[in-house]
Amino acid sequence: MNQANTVFLMISTILVFFMTPGLAFFYGGLVSKKNVVNTMASVFVITGIAIILFAAFGYNIAFGKNVFGVFGFDRSFFLSKVDLTAMYSKDLGITNASYLLFQMMFSIITPALFVGAVVGRMKFRYLLSFLVIWSVLVYYPMVHMVWSPDGILAKMGMIDFAGGTVVHINAGITALLLSIAVGPRLKENVTSEHYSLSWVLLGTSILWIGWYGFNVGSAFAINKVALQAFLTTTIATGASMLTWLVLELKFRGKPSLIGICTGTLCGLVGITPAAGYVSGAGAFFIGVICTCASYLFINFAKNKIKLDDPLDAFGCHGVSGIMGSILTGLFASKSVNADIPENGLFYNGGWHLFLVQSGGTLITIIFVTILTLLIVKILNFFMAIRVSPEEEMQGLDLAEHDEKVSY
Amino acid sequence: MNQANTVFLMISTILVFFMTPGLAFFYGGLVSKKNVVNTMASVFVITGIAIILFAAFGYNIAFGKNVFGVFGFDRSFFLSKVDLTAMYSKDLGITNASYLLFQMMFSIITPALFVGAVVGRMKFRYLLSFLVIWSVLVYYPMVHMVWSPDGILAKMGMIDFAGGTVVHINAGITALLLSIAVGPRLKENVTSEHYSLSWVLLGTSILWIGWYGFNVGSAFAINKVALQAFLTTTIATGASMLTWLVLELKFRGKPSLIGICTGTLCGLVGITPAAGYVSGAGAFFIGVICTCASYLFINFAKNKIKLDDPLDAFGCHGVSGIMGSILTGLFASKSVNADIPENGLFYNGGWHLFLVQSGGTLITIIFVTILTLLIVKILNFFMAIRVSPEEEMQGLDLAEHDEKVSY
Amino acid sequence: MNQANTVFLMISTILVFFMTPGLAFFYGGLVSKKNVVNTMASVFVITGIAIILFAAFGYNIAFGKNVFGVFGFDRSFFLSKVDLTAMYSKDLGITNASYLLFQMMFSIITPALFVGAVVGRMKFRYLLSFLVIWSVLVYYPMVHMVWSPDGILAKMGMIDFAGGTVVHINAGITALLLSIAVGPRLKENVTSEHYSLSWVLLGTSILWIGWYGFNVGSAFAINKVALQAFLTTTIATGASMLTWLVLELKFRGKPSLIGICTGTLCGLVGITPAAGYVSGAGAFFIGVICTCASYLFINFAKNKIKLDDPLDAFGCHGVSGIMGSILTGLFASKSVNADIPENGLFYNGGWHLFLVQSGGTLITIIFVTILTLLIVKILNFFMAIRVSPEEEMQGLDLAEHDEKVSY
Repeated sequence: MNQANTVFLMISTILVFFMTPGLAFFYGGLVSKKNVVNTMASVFVITGIAIILFAAFGYNIAFGKNVFGVFGFDRSFFLSKVDLTAMYSKDLGITNASYLLFQMMFSIITPALFVGAVVGRMKFRYLLSFLVIWSVLVYYPMVHMVWSPDGILAKMGMIDFAGGTVVHINAGITALLLSIAVGPRLKENVTSEHYSLSWVLLGTSILWIGWYGFNVGSAFAINKVALQAFLTTTIATGASMLTWLVLELKFRGKPSLIGICTGTLCGLVGITPAAGYVSGAGAFFIGVICTCASYLFINFAKNKIKLDDPLDAFGCHGVSGIMGSILTGLFASKSVNADIPENGLFYNGGWHLFLVQSGGTLITIIFVTILTLLIVKILNFFMAIRVSPEEEMQGLDLAEHDEKVSY
Repeated sequence: MNQANTVFLMISTILVFFMTPGLAFFYGGLVSKKNVVNTMASVFVITGIAIILFAAFGYNIAFGKNVFGVFGFDRSFFLSKVDLTAMYSKDLGITNASYLLFQMMFSIITPALFVGAVVGRMKFRYLLSFLVIWSVLVYYPMVHMVWSPDGILAKMGMIDFAGGTVVHINAGITALLLSIAVGPRLKENVTSEHYSLSWVLLGTSILWIGWYGFNVGSAFAINKVALQAFLTTTIATGASMLTWLVLELKFRGKPSLIGICTGTLCGLVGITPAAGYVSGAGAFFIGVICTCASYLFINFAKNKIKLDDPLDAFGCHGVSGIMGSILTGLFASKSVNADIPENGLFYNGGWHLFLVQSGGTLITIIFVTILTLLIVKILNFFMAIRVSPEEEMQGLDLAEHDEKVSY
Repeated sequence: MNQANTVFLMISTILVFFMTPGLAFFYGGLVSKKNVVNTMASVFVITGIAIILFAAFGYNIAFGKNVFGVFGFDRSFFLSKVDLTAMYSKDLGITNASYLLFQMMFSIITPALFVGAVVGRMKFRYLLSFLVIWSVLVYYPMVHMVWSPDGILAKMGMIDFAGGTVVHINAGITALLLSIAVGPRLKENVTSEHYSLSWVLLGTSILWIGWYGFNVGSAFAINKVALQAFLTTTIATGASMLTWLVLELKFRGKPSLIGICTGTLCGLVGITPAAGYVSGAGAFFIGVICTCASYLFINFAKNKIKLDDPLDAFGCHGVSGIMGSILTGLFASKSVNADIPENGLFYNGGWHLFLVQSGGTLITIIFVTILTLLIVKILNFFMAIRVSPEEEMQGLDLAEHDEKVSY
């Protein structure tokens, strides 16, 4: 065991775990006062569900014996056949336990992201059922396809440093589809009221901190790639925050705290697939471009397509996730990270990596779309997806939890 | 010095420190609006008191020259004779400074736990006096008995990975006794109002994060036992959260955010003594059983015995702490950790470890009970334990601090 | 690369980063409800600005080729000529990337500190412009003077473990001057209302946590000096908190939560320059003395000199920072840290170090004062420093951001 790498990965694991409560605060701060408990509970309860699911059989589906490059399989349950103390990677000196725990935290935060798209309307029971099935049919296979060496996207030559496809595109597309499936809020229920901007900022801050675990930890060792991922994550995020600020100064006149926070998240999302592959300057441009794309979508396109995604789970994670994944094909450089198969377009690598990244992104979108629609179709057969109009107007805190926030 | 172990222990120390503000938010969110400042201040001020106390002579009482296996003694003050740079453990490469700092944080969080039992009624001055005396007469000796190699509970063969007895049973029983000593709230003051559920969730999240320092750090080295403790802590907590959710669905109809948070804490408390000794499956069952016990106590037994422990300091830490300590005698396994003296009952170890754990738990309860009652008896001689009814109705924020929360 | 040191410095970097949102919560909790968004946004947006500035050319000014011992210079932009993977220190096994990232976080938190002095009155646009110019003309040169081996203060023999001069005196004096430049609040706008004391406590807690990265990380290696800095930071902070408590009991009758938090910060500020140079007992006295000084200033002197620094950015960071820097000349001891040039007065080192520390402090104050006044003079030529009286009464949340907090 390489102790330094193990302690590095353990801290990263804790940081990634912290993202989920962070997201609960971010989303909880954004919704109206009557839906705070429901929103926070919906995000936080995923920690319990995803932990048990991942330990019970998720790890096997993601990293078991390869089946068609799409999922894994092992005839065991609750890690009973996993040798936790064996090396996951002899080179890095990381055991299976370290790797498993890090991956477990990713399996929590990903489904938590799409909660933002359905707040205030979806039945709590439906949400819980959906996310169990979605984890099994969509998330674990996606992990296998991208991060298992036998996965089909890995074999295509697609590169995804910390989970742009697996986490952000995946969750973003699911958010889009769920948002359409559950339908927009009642007209009389649409409000620009936010529970608390300070909770939004707290959530953003915790997400940023946690993202260092997410992106830097994805080097699986404390080495120069890890430090590069730290630098690019920081620069892209700074650039994104300022880009949003400038766009708001131009289009809105006054910069908003919500804008500063949203810009921050766009940068974190956008740099995720590229973090260990690009230079500081590359990170700067990725941050700027992703933020512009998300800004345009959220402020102009969203209304046109009549999407009711009140917390912009798709506008932020989906749009910046897709952009980041594709931009990795332009900015990736072997001089930053010798492990990647080829340079991106801007580093004399030609169009190949760009096409691979775009193709992989498309495959991800298609895979997630088909399975998510299928799950919704089947689940709708068994239970109602949406609360009654009375419950919606009353707020889900009382309707679903018999609780409410006083302040 | 083993640098990796030292950095590991330092991070764990920071995480354990973070638990105390986390607890301030957890308790502060649960109380009514007029007692928020008092509750948060009561918890947070313990950091200052316990730090200075531990440096001044607490470390000596806990780890000084053994006296009767019950406490330590050293003719020095403020660490003047402690060689901070000497090795605490040559095998682990940890210095005295590392160990001392880790232990210091435990001495903060433990008395902070029982604040929950007396909120809204106890005089601030009484609380501060009590916790100084209690630290000296109860806490430091408990540390000596369990974690000093010469301590009587250590010599009995009792195992306690991260502080089930020293921290949770100890604080839980004290909470129970203090709650009785100060008496229940005035009837007209009993309310189900909570200041803010979002602060409860924030507190829970920080406690969870901090608990990784608490449980995993108790391996004192980044090794396979540490990783196992990480895994068991995570699984037990996930299982507890879902157990509480299921129990609420059955008995209350609707799952609550407070319930999800309370379940989370029960799991964290329950797994503490067992964290480095049990398998993932064992952790799962410990989480489920502890949560059931706490749930039954809080929802059914508490009212019957007319206990007014509004934040369930005993119901959570006491009950789950006792259960966890005893269950360690059933689930501990030498295949997980070769350092323990024997297997638990379920791993063909027979009843011996179970009896040792039960006996040690009983001794802890008796020791804490006698001394806590004695301290209360003596202190009551010198000062009033409780605010006046007028002050109680006014709220302790104004009465004791001349401050109040606006929102 | 020394992996353990690198992971240690990386965690410290994350912790220092976390201080800036922590400060946003601390300041945001203290202001009145109509200025929360502006205060939090003003602090948080500095993360983005300072990151990009530091990467673009700040690092060069601070650590480039020495010019007159006052600043650095390099003919490059956006780290294009910095070899990130080269060793910053072969002895410690730390690369340039590690060091640069750590320093980057310091360049964020420092300007964030003086936001506290101007809340509720300064134009957002002015603040942003000021902090860009101030970073370039004041902050980066200060870093060069103290932490570059060629810097004039370093050459004088001044010691500053973690940034007492560079960060706290620097930001504190700037806060004082800006507070005077922008002028006091309108009389009818002065209020003792605070948005939320729980946010103040959260901010304090995060700052404390983050300060471990700040002070301990400044050892640049996980070694006995780092552990000593951990111990002294903890003891000084505990002593400060209790000192403020005792002073309030004497002068105010009732201890306040804001007081406990302010005391905490005074300890953290005061021990910063001394953290790795003094004993546990020295840290205790530094904490006590700095807190007394800040308490006296804030409660007695501030009104006399008619300073309107509502969040005590100067009273806390300025006063305790100056005291800590000078006290380092009394308490520093070669037996704690063999690297310092000489002992302080109380360790038989004579008056020399005390005079050097006092002189360096004075030079810092003069340097910052001249340049800050100059920047204000010039900036005032181009734009208004202060919002209109109507905007001030309305609150800067609506006036500057078109947002407000609901709760």
